Amino acid sequence: MKKLINSPETVVTEALEGVAAAHPSLSVDVENKVITRAGGPTPDKVGLVSGGGSGHEPLHGGFVGYGMLDAACPGEVFTSPVPDQMLAATQAVNGGAGVLHVVKNYTGDVLNFQMAAEMAEDEGIEVVPVVINDDVAVEDSLYTAGRRGTGATVFVEKIAGALAEQGAGLAAVAAVAREVNERSRSFGVALSSCVVPAAGKPTFELGEAEAELGIGIHGEPGRTRAALTPARDLAAVALDAIRSDLPVRGDLLVMVNGMGGTPLIELYLMFNEVRKYVEGHGGHVARNLVGNYITSLEMQGFSVTVCQLTDTLTPLWDAPVDTPALRWGR
Amino acid sequence: MKKLINSPETVVTEALEGVAAAHPSLSVDVENKVITRAGGPTPDKVGLVSGGGSGHEPLHGGFVGYGMLDAACPGEVFTSPVPDQMLAATQAVNGGAGVLHVVKNYTGDVLNFQMAAEMAEDEGIEVVPVVINDDVAVEDSLYTAGRRGTGATVFVEKIAGALAEQGAGLAAVAAVAREVNERSRSFGVALSSCVVPAAGKPTFELGEAEAELGIGIHGEPGRTRAALTPARDLAAVALDAIRSDLPVRGDLLVMVNGMGGTPLIELYLMFNEVRKYVEGHGGHVARNLVGNYITSLEMQGFSVTVCQLTDTLTPLWDAPVDTPALRWGR
Repeated sequence: MKKLINSPETVVTEALEGVAAAHPSLSVDVENKVITRAGGPTPDKVGLVSGGGSGHEPLHGGFVGYGMLDAACPGEVFTSPVPDQMLAATQAVNGGAGVLHVVKNYTGDVLNFQMAAEMAEDEGIEVVPVVINDDVAVEDSLYTAGRRGTGATVFVEKIAGALAEQGAGLAAVAAVAREVNERSRSFGVALSSCVVPAAGKPTFELGEAEAELGIGIHGEPGRTRAALTPARDLAAVALDAIRSDLPVRGDLLVMVNGMGGTPLIELYLMFNEVRKYVEGHGGHVARNLVGNYITSLEMQGFSVTVCQLTDTLTPLWDAPVDTPALRWGR
Repeated sequence: MKKLINSPETVVTEALEGVAAAHPSLSVDVENKVITRAGGPTPDKVGLVSGGGSGHEPLHGGFVGYGMLDAACPGEVFTSPVPDQMLAATQAVNGGAGVLHVVKNYTGDVLNFQMAAEMAEDEGIEVVPVVINDDVAVEDSLYTAGRRGTGATVFVEKIAGALAEQGAGLAAVAAVAREVNERSRSFGVALSSCVVPAAGKPTFELGEAEAELGIGIHGEPGRTRAALTPARDLAAVALDAIRSDLPVRGDLLVMVNGMGGTPLIELYLMFNEVRKYVEGHGGHVARNLVGNYITSLEMQGFSVTVCQLTDTLTPLWDAPVDTPALRWGR
């Protein structure tokens, strides 16, 4: 196992110490694994909390800040955070207007966020959960009933975060989060496995000339294993799958996301192929993200996420954001 | 070779098409491989041009924009751009106040930038080159006489770019660029090789439990090959080497940079070790960058760059910047 770590047991804690030291805009409770904005809760603003297993950085901690999340609770690598963490995060960001839980659709995350929401409600904090399930690759995968939640999480956190920042109420913020999820679809491709530190060996094996089409963000199996083909063919595989479930017409927000071990030069090349495909099918890439936003440790590969924009969603995407990993307009 | 590409010959051109499509703030001449700000040259502002082989993204194209570079010219992967590219970039950004060339110390880059400067001077454009040579690992490496230029390039482009944006003249902008270079040192460690697309195989071979200490950004040999040790020991190796050449005391700007294939969670953990080392030696990490800024394709590993800040340099680092890869304060 080739990793920049001290020991598998302390990876998450030590990385959180690094996050705390690197970003004065964040307040990091390393012991309880809760990342919040340094300024404390914003009075009368809906609080946004997300969380999930570590190993997907910058998701979620890198998206805590003005215009996006109020808190993130990271679990151990590829392991759901516990309800106590989620409750602590919910309490910490409660400004009196209720709290939105952004939950990726994995069984552990969904159950634990549900327990945390019940505990918070017992304390008089109104909580609404929104479950993200944008990955069209497979139904009922390892760890998941239904579709997996992947790249759309970034879009939901940004757009719902912007609406919350503008002072909208909990019902409206939850509604736009659900709308973004419903209008978004993703598909991922792996060229290599990742290595979970505690396991010490690759999660799966891929041949020298193979790719896993429809990979999950924890290395869960996709639709099929196939020969590694040129970038334009991989773009078509991903977008054919997305398009079978959601038209890629009109103004679109498109993310070409790196899985963690793929260099930026390849992501830009892949974005170019995605853009050409979309334009060839009547769509227009009105907004984009190209880079590492929801990763799977050192896995090589990419995912594409497409969101159908509307006259309401585009300005919320464009609204100012100031987080470690996403920052513009302020 | 596992890469998201169509063919080795078209990687750079197709990636540039992706950059052009992703960033409306940039103007990309794909044929001549020149990236400039979309708005054209800023009248009476010193223009900043950098360039070098591709494969180090986001360097340099990702640093073109307000407060940083005016143009970048990417060569083929790990290959110097040609003088004609550099001349075209110099002409494109000439606002009448002269042009600074930020040149990493590799023989091809230095010679080609020198030829481009002479051609530009023949056209009446004043050009001053600043050569970056911050890598303490080795002297007279493959491709280089003297020390290699690596991470300090990011600091120079940011700080000199800020001073140029404030309206300083060419001599002052060049002086601050030289000062940042002189006050900065770097050291890199590789856990794996990279694969140049045209070569199709790893540049070098590393054993399962080995690391290359003092790696160059093109996979050039470092000081020694050693057993892969815990992160805290690797931080000490890098910082011992830096500290033997530059005191790490006082307020420091520190970058923990990923080589391209290392996930962010490991970079934050490594940053934590670097911070602890610095604090243990009388230094203070006053500013930082943690992420992929000057990469070597899909190489796993990291580099540390340390710059001794001053009362002049810190505000220039903090000044607004608006580029694809570095953005704050505006």
